Amino acid sequence: MKKPLEVKTLEEARSKFSRYWEPNRQTEKVSITEAGGRILAGDVKSKIDLPPFDRSVYDGYAVRAEDTFGAEEDNPVKLHLKGKILAGQKPEIEIDSNECLEISTGAPMPWGADAVVMVEDTSIDDAGKVKVRNAVSSKENVSEKGSELEKGQRIVSSDTEISPQVYGSLLACGTKNVSVYRKPRVGVISIGEELVDMDSELEIGKIYDINGPTISRAVRELGSRSSYLGILKDEIEEMKREIGKALADFDIVITSGATSAGSSDFLPEVVKNLGDPGVVVHGLAQKPGKPTLMAVVKDKPLFGLPGYPVSALMVFYRVVAPYLREMSCGLSLDRKIVEAHLSRKTTSEPGRRELVPVSLSKKNGMRIATPLRKGSGAITSLSKSDGCFVIPLGIEMMDADEIVDVELFGEVLP
Amino acid sequence: MKKPLEVKTLEEARSKFSRYWEPNRQTEKVSITEAGGRILAGDVKSKIDLPPFDRSVYDGYAVRAEDTFGAEEDNPVKLHLKGKILAGQKPEIEIDSNECLEISTGAPMPWGADAVVMVEDTSIDDAGKVKVRNAVSSKENVSEKGSELEKGQRIVSSDTEISPQVYGSLLACGTKNVSVYRKPRVGVISIGEELVDMDSELEIGKIYDINGPTISRAVRELGSRSSYLGILKDEIEEMKREIGKALADFDIVITSGATSAGSSDFLPEVVKNLGDPGVVVHGLAQKPGKPTLMAVVKDKPLFGLPGYPVSALMVFYRVVAPYLREMSCGLSLDRKIVEAHLSRKTTSEPGRRELVPVSLSKKNGMRIATPLRKGSGAITSLSKSDGCFVIPLGIEMMDADEIVDVELFGEVLP
Repeated sequence: MKKPLEVKTLEEARSKFSRYWEPNRQTEKVSITEAGGRILAGDVKSKIDLPPFDRSVYDGYAVRAEDTFGAEEDNPVKLHLKGKILAGQKPEIEIDSNECLEISTGAPMPWGADAVVMVEDTSIDDAGKVKVRNAVSSKENVSEKGSELEKGQRIVSSDTEISPQVYGSLLACGTKNVSVYRKPRVGVISIGEELVDMDSELEIGKIYDINGPTISRAVRELGSRSSYLGILKDEIEEMKREIGKALADFDIVITSGATSAGSSDFLPEVVKNLGDPGVVVHGLAQKPGKPTLMAVVKDKPLFGLPGYPVSALMVFYRVVAPYLREMSCGLSLDRKIVEAHLSRKTTSEPGRRELVPVSLSKKNGMRIATPLRKGSGAITSLSKSDGCFVIPLGIEMMDADEIVDVELFGEVLP
Repeated sequence: MKKPLEVKTLEEARSKFSRYWEPNRQTEKVSITEAGGRILAGDVKSKIDLPPFDRSVYDGYAVRAEDTFGAEEDNPVKLHLKGKILAGQKPEIEIDSNECLEISTGAPMPWGADAVVMVEDTSIDDAGKVKVRNAVSSKENVSEKGSELEKGQRIVSSDTEISPQVYGSLLACGTKNVSVYRKPRVGVISIGEELVDMDSELEIGKIYDINGPTISRAVRELGSRSSYLGILKDEIEEMKREIGKALADFDIVITSGATSAGSSDFLPEVVKNLGDPGVVVHGLAQKPGKPTLMAVVKDKPLFGLPGYPVSALMVFYRVVAPYLREMSCGLSLDRKIVEAHLSRKTTSEPGRRELVPVSLSKKNGMRIATPLRKGSGAITSLSKSDGCFVIPLGIEMMDADEIVDVELFGEVLP
């Protein structure tokens, strides 16, 4: 009635299995709007210069820098106000020597101007002239075209998860479609005469099938697509037909039940009949999970989990999940506060509580928080940010190596 | 042209804001099949006894225990084999003294039998009699009806996230619908003359709107529903109409842009016109994020994020996200290995690598792993499991307080 299983350690099982099948990552092209949470399968380069034109960083006046040279609090330079340009408007007015244009944050620089005087450093005299009390140098308070990122430069590297902050960076650079790793399609089947689905009446001898829906749900949480294909009875012909169909339709098939060495445990026999090489591993040296089956049929893997629900789910997480993670490149999420050593001295302006975005890494076992560039390049560096820490009010400087609490954005922890 | 913002610390801002609005958690009933990942808004009790009938734990023979008393290796008891019952079959044969029935794992106990002899402890003699070489006591190798959980007992407590393992427990107990916290509906709006959507041509002066789609995506990742409502121009009447409509249609409205003190930063004025109390906070003592606006209009909150994308996302995570998390009760996910102290001595069978499911907790700042019950009660204790650790091959006992590596199942870390 029973013959003992030839048990293997998980490492032995994986090693033997890899001779017949290895997870491979396939890619697909999707619209950026559908790509949130997916993993990039290639570097993404910017379609545009960012910013796409010279922009004013502040509300103020667009000027020729040389016209303001020598301007001081007590000795302002007076400029003729030629008009106004708001964010979103096209630059249609050109300014000449000793002229200026009122400009709002984000507005394009008008022709002829090369710097912006902040509104705080100006006033208007009775004649309507703009009095500039502070000299500016060329390009001062201007965010130059392409200074964040030039057209064709890499925005994000392959294998990065498209977190909200990566998503934002991709959109900013005009990305329409991205290549991502394809989610494996997994077919899930429950096997057992005693199983009924949750909508059925529970007659004596029957229990609800929980493995099918539960494994199916766990597969989805790991970033794969899953279809729960229902319950099969302990009947060889039906099992051959349905499991064979599932192996044709899906990338991976996961069954539960019928894997022991009992009289109605037909799965090994069924698999043997479906195609080569068939059963590769039957029996793991672990508990629970001893009657686990790993098979390959015509290049498709089939994982036969034990029928007992606790065992099934634990074997799923331990044996199957790593393959799914590797195929979908789905990485774990973490949204916590972590301590990290600051990589370099970081300053803050007085009277401010400053949030400093950082990227996290490890060095000699220590977690390192590297503050990201502010100002120019910040939008793209945001895609590298794992979180931020706070320089509290009243503190103006934090030293290299100080320990900071990093609030994670929800990205992966390195 | 400008008046300075009255900046507040985040704590001050939250405290003032809470006088006008506080996040409240609403509930809704959903089908269990739609409830994966949601948070339970009430305890769930079992609809059935689990198991629903006395079941055999092994393949073997159902017997009257008293008939086996005195059976030994050299002095077997012989029983008349009356037939066979498989998992899923109804118990139709009754056994009498000195009779037995072949039984498979999970099959219901036949009338008259009260114990199961494992197949390993038996053999069949030439006359077809079953020779029992090991005595069993009453109820041995039987999983009694209701021994895992009785009808009406609590399966899972309120405020638990429906992880795959919780999902499985709920299904096992016949749960059809559950009460979960409703996901807040969030309307997201971008404001700015310079913004165009990703399908538009990028004329000079224009940039892609990234805040709308990005914040919308971040809202969804936090477990709320979000609708990106598009781009508004810096035009008071349109803003009043569209933001007013969003406040009527959604639980929360998040805008970005138009919050500074510049000449086209109309949001404060628009909010003032929409209803009381209007702007509650305008200006945070942090960088980035100074021009943040927090308003309440007719009991609905509106968060006005700065227009600059880096600032917008950081303010979103710091200021808005905690409210969303509180409303949806969405908890952070973690799928990692953590170290924990074993709560008690745990044994393993020789020659086995044993996976021990544990629940995690904290005590005096130390993370504690409490091994969960095996055997009876294991399905329901699975819903409490946060992960498992491995007792390696060759180790038969691990002492209380030993440090173990817990592989998380994907549940929340306490």
